[in-house]
Amino acid sequence: MASWVTVSENSDFSLQNLPYGIFSTSGDDDARIGTAIGDSVLDLKVLAQGGVFDDLKFDVGTLQEPTLNSYAALGKTVHQKVRHRLQKLLEKETQLSHLLRDNKTIYEKAFYKQANVQMHLPMKINNYTDFFVGLHHAVTCAGLVKPGQTIEQVCPCFYNLPIAYNGRTSSVVVSEMPFHRPNGQFPVDGKVVSGPCRKLDFEVEFAAFISRGNSFGAPINVDEAEDHIFGFVLLNDWSARDIQMYESTLMGPFNGKSFCTTISPWVVPPEALEPFRVAPKVTPRELPEYLREKREKSAYDIPIRATLANSENYRIADCNTNNVIFSFAQMIAHHTCGGCPLQTGDLIGTGTLSGPSRAEAGCLLEQTLGGTSPYEMKAEDPSKGSVIRAFCEDNDTITFTAQAKLSEGFGNVGFGACSGKVLPAI
Amino acid sequence: MASWVTVSENSDFSLQNLPYGIFSTSGDDDARIGTAIGDSVLDLKVLAQGGVFDDLKFDVGTLQEPTLNSYAALGKTVHQKVRHRLQKLLEKETQLSHLLRDNKTIYEKAFYKQANVQMHLPMKINNYTDFFVGLHHAVTCAGLVKPGQTIEQVCPCFYNLPIAYNGRTSSVVVSEMPFHRPNGQFPVDGKVVSGPCRKLDFEVEFAAFISRGNSFGAPINVDEAEDHIFGFVLLNDWSARDIQMYESTLMGPFNGKSFCTTISPWVVPPEALEPFRVAPKVTPRELPEYLREKREKSAYDIPIRATLANSENYRIADCNTNNVIFSFAQMIAHHTCGGCPLQTGDLIGTGTLSGPSRAEAGCLLEQTLGGTSPYEMKAEDPSKGSVIRAFCEDNDTITFTAQAKLSEGFGNVGFGACSGKVLPAI
Repeated sequence: MASWVTVSENSDFSLQNLPYGIFSTSGDDDARIGTAIGDSVLDLKVLAQGGVFDDLKFDVGTLQEPTLNSYAALGKTVHQKVRHRLQKLLEKETQLSHLLRDNKTIYEKAFYKQANVQMHLPMKINNYTDFFVGLHHAVTCAGLVKPGQTIEQVCPCFYNLPIAYNGRTSSVVVSEMPFHRPNGQFPVDGKVVSGPCRKLDFEVEFAAFISRGNSFGAPINVDEAEDHIFGFVLLNDWSARDIQMYESTLMGPFNGKSFCTTISPWVVPPEALEPFRVAPKVTPRELPEYLREKREKSAYDIPIRATLANSENYRIADCNTNNVIFSFAQMIAHHTCGGCPLQTGDLIGTGTLSGPSRAEAGCLLEQTLGGTSPYEMKAEDPSKGSVIRAFCEDNDTITFTAQAKLSEGFGNVGFGACSGKVLPAI
Repeated sequence: MASWVTVSENSDFSLQNLPYGIFSTSGDDDARIGTAIGDSVLDLKVLAQGGVFDDLKFDVGTLQEPTLNSYAALGKTVHQKVRHRLQKLLEKETQLSHLLRDNKTIYEKAFYKQANVQMHLPMKINNYTDFFVGLHHAVTCAGLVKPGQTIEQVCPCFYNLPIAYNGRTSSVVVSEMPFHRPNGQFPVDGKVVSGPCRKLDFEVEFAAFISRGNSFGAPINVDEAEDHIFGFVLLNDWSARDIQMYESTLMGPFNGKSFCTTISPWVVPPEALEPFRVAPKVTPRELPEYLREKREKSAYDIPIRATLANSENYRIADCNTNNVIFSFAQMIAHHTCGGCPLQTGDLIGTGTLSGPSRAEAGCLLEQTLGGTSPYEMKAEDPSKGSVIRAFCEDNDTITFTAQAKLSEGFGNVGFGACSGKVLPAI
């Protein structure tokens, strides 16, 4: 499918993507729902108000709200109908040209350039859960703590269930929001000091937003779990390693992670990622009934690149969403197996998606062997040389991008950049 | 101060208390804001609509909402004005009788018996943080894991900062909501099984609700932190010990805690607890600047009793809110020192408030020495004998009550029961 809207060859936003986001413009600072196509944003509030979805028989008021929560809560059937309608409106040979392309009133109000809009958090996030299902990240980190140590020695349940911790919801921000290097306590040369973090790190993650939740006490079946996913974003789980290591021996990460978590602005629907399905790693193995999934290809093969951008762009790492040992369906089934309710707008991260090699390490902790072996990052323009990092420095901007390529002529499915800048401590 | 509303000698709700809660009635199932006095609920929505607060110059619409969030966000000055007005309305020698006592239209609509109302969660909880600042709980648990082990051996930062984990917000429920014993994975005799938790426990905690938060990146000063507290509740941090121990070696508690957290229904304002101030334990010691509090008496001396109620009431333990090594002000200062934003409606728990003796243990894990030494609980009526527990059994109801006694004739300040019943696993 091609669109009558221009979509360049390297755009994240082909007609097969159609992600949801929340944006505002200089002329109208009300946050509203849009979709991305090429380098444009299509204002879905304008379309809803213009009656474009009236025959689809759902509450079109949900597309006129300042977050995606009410719309997400409508469930998969509605989302698929709207997606289908949007594709029909935007495809080259559209039979619905009277609704958008040839409808002057709507057409003139509905399109913006992405470069000219301000993106906002796509959903009101009620709970944020960060899993730890990255195989290579776990294995490498266990060995970093003590040479030769296996992940099962520090975490006996690692292969049996998707472990996780509750993340901090209030400090999740949308791409391009800068943050200050956090202050905290940690030991330096055997003495505990209080001050700015000295081991600031990022973590390359993939994350899902929940559409419909479950009731208190009612687990979600693993084979029905995917129906609860609204869509996907990239996630940077910024980590203050020194603060984290010192605080987390008993209760897990807290201030070491709670100062900022960055997500990409566009929520990519599951339908757009269907062509990229693969099986999670390390299967099959004996799992309890509630984690046994009928679907084999329940993970995704999507490359995620991390880049450091200061004056130049330096390539840090190439990760992949397939470096997981559990699927989102299994994470959701485990999350709810004890009765915990998920809610619309819950954000669920995978944990760091490192590959097996150093150039695929999804965080500096791995890449620099705990900071002991600073890593050389090459500029994308080879004439610009390279930079060396042990951990993030002030004014570093770290950006994740991910682009899954469809077959010839169908374009790409991407997420927009997940980007954040480190400001000096206050 | 005495009230013209009857307040019995053992009531939690003297005129010096005046907590906030959310209730509904059989005749009107809209959730609304009330305060408790004696065995009555006073409907603050009716008062607000009747113009009782009109001269106080705040948005009285906030008292007509179905949660306390908007009202809490108004801040301390407004809360103190409203509290003062309520005391003046309800005191025996009221000079404001025309506004309530002698105002038939309002009086007849404004009072309900507590026994006849349904209580709801008082606030929309945005984030729930559970600290671990109970001194004796930490010391005892460290020794239980390995005899002779100190808390600093397993948690080197324990005395230097208030450690915490992010709790699960969506499974916080109000008193009297029953829950099912959670399913999960855990080892039994060296083999991992999947099924109903076998080591279900409670934890006696005290918790604060946040009124106004802080901006992203802007820490709260420890000496200003108390201004961000709206009020206090009792909290039962139900814990599945077998699930928790197995899952939490790397990332802290998750499913072991996320199936249910129960809070008492009435939010007691800080002003009501002023008479009960004490210093936290284990002070003074060298703390970094951001945790050095000018106020010495920053903790509270309030006894909390845990009771098991089946056919009879059996006394389990007597804890106290003073068994802490950090104050709420210090918890808030630490929580935000890296820039993490608190939000209106955030819930912050202390962790288990055990005292030094076995009869003061705030959870069964401590009381039964990890389940190895079942504990005999005596009935309140001595003729009814006792029961023995290692961990909670199906159909056990665990109830916390707390009553701080003012000087002779001034009555008590209490919280209402924090009660929950264990239903069988599903």
